[in-house]
Amino acid sequence: MKPAARVKNPTMLSTEAAGECDNDNDSYCLSWRLAVEANNVKAWRTVPARCEMHVERYMTGGQFEQDVELVVDEMLRYMDGIMIAGDGMDAWVLDVDDTCISNVAYYKERRFGCDPFEGEGFRAWARKAECPAIPGVLRLYKRLIESGFKVILITGRDKETLGHVTILNLHDQGFSGYQQLTMRTPAYKGQSAAAYKSNVRRQIVEGGYRIWGNVGDQWTDLLGEYVGGRTFKIPNPMYCVS
Amino acid sequence: MKPAARVKNPTMLSTEAAGECDNDNDSYCLSWRLAVEANNVKAWRTVPARCEMHVERYMTGGQFEQDVELVVDEMLRYMDGIMIAGDGMDAWVLDVDDTCISNVAYYKERRFGCDPFEGEGFRAWARKAECPAIPGVLRLYKRLIESGFKVILITGRDKETLGHVTILNLHDQGFSGYQQLTMRTPAYKGQSAAAYKSNVRRQIVEGGYRIWGNVGDQWTDLLGEYVGGRTFKIPNPMYCVS
Repeated sequence: MKPAARVKNPTMLSTEAAGECDNDNDSYCLSWRLAVEANNVKAWRTVPARCEMHVERYMTGGQFEQDVELVVDEMLRYMDGIMIAGDGMDAWVLDVDDTCISNVAYYKERRFGCDPFEGEGFRAWARKAECPAIPGVLRLYKRLIESGFKVILITGRDKETLGHVTILNLHDQGFSGYQQLTMRTPAYKGQSAAAYKSNVRRQIVEGGYRIWGNVGDQWTDLLGEYVGGRTFKIPNPMYCVS
Repeated sequence: MKPAARVKNPTMLSTEAAGECDNDNDSYCLSWRLAVEANNVKAWRTVPARCEMHVERYMTGGQFEQDVELVVDEMLRYMDGIMIAGDGMDAWVLDVDDTCISNVAYYKERRFGCDPFEGEGFRAWARKAECPAIPGVLRLYKRLIESGFKVILITGRDKETLGHVTILNLHDQGFSGYQQLTMRTPAYKGQSAAAYKSNVRRQIVEGGYRIWGNVGDQWTDLLGEYVGGRTFKIPNPMYCVS
């Protein structure tokens, strides 16, 4: 929590003042969010309506960033223990949306996920190429590249319509120097997210890469085949890709 | 949160009064606990010392039970959608310690996991056969049996020294009518928890069972082979079995 969570004025004893767990509703939303992150609740369509404010506070009040920082610290600890071979084949796989770059500003307009996904609106947002970097993941990304790992980005975004803007957006936000960015092409059409990403990772491994780490905000990024040495789940209580 | 989390007296604006996230330390501990539940932090030895009070409040203040209830509701929703074959081979696998029955009373004496695991003390506690049922999981268990599923319990507890007391403890707490309780025997000696449990599940599947659900408080219960149709992680921020 940011310092704002410290209560200075007793009249402010609202949910807002006391953090995110001072009433029964927030208690429910904490349970729901934990279940999402532990992959206990799957293929959910929207955030429960009663949790809109909870998710807004979580995503914009500092806790999300702190959660990411702790996971990044753990990834770096793991990374520091890896002896790379020096043959240029030691790789990490990262997802793009809400892993490298953030769509929170878009989801704010979708009541932080209480409204269902709407493809055209999302594509219009993505075409602006204004997704900001998630600072913790950018920190990881830079350390990976400095340390000699090859970073491979895999996204479900459509290559034909969003390829250019995605490359631009990533570059503007500091994600440069990656080895490969794989986007959806007609060849992957109709595949589930987990199948598509497993297929891409299979090709990566068949190409001789060793996938040490695999980072994503969706469990469909992290489950399936060729998942890598360790997987890391970036929190995302706003939407679920199944 | 229980009603106690509602602040009645402004002088009580402590961590205790305002729930579990009203200061920087609790913010860190929320991040740590989330990372544990999402399997981002692995093979950790003890709870961070600064999180002792946070974990105590989580385990004893009502949020843990609420988190379990939400996961159980999700399991029952999944269970209700399964068409069982009626051949007696539709199974669920459940772990025992801190899945069916609780060791919180023991871990209270170990500073809620801030002290490292100590085998002899734990065995002395287990021999009392006084672990209470976790209410939500008992609710699941009864519904599974009523619905015609075979419940198979797999525990890392040693059969020779703890077999009798474990059966007794489970029975006293309402866990009766299970199909099988598998405990560690010398045949499994030296195997990691994940390997041991995978081996047992392999035998179950080779015996013709279909494992629909797999429930445990440790990721080593849920990862590996023959994990079942869906896995469900019961929260446990007190210790990690690797």
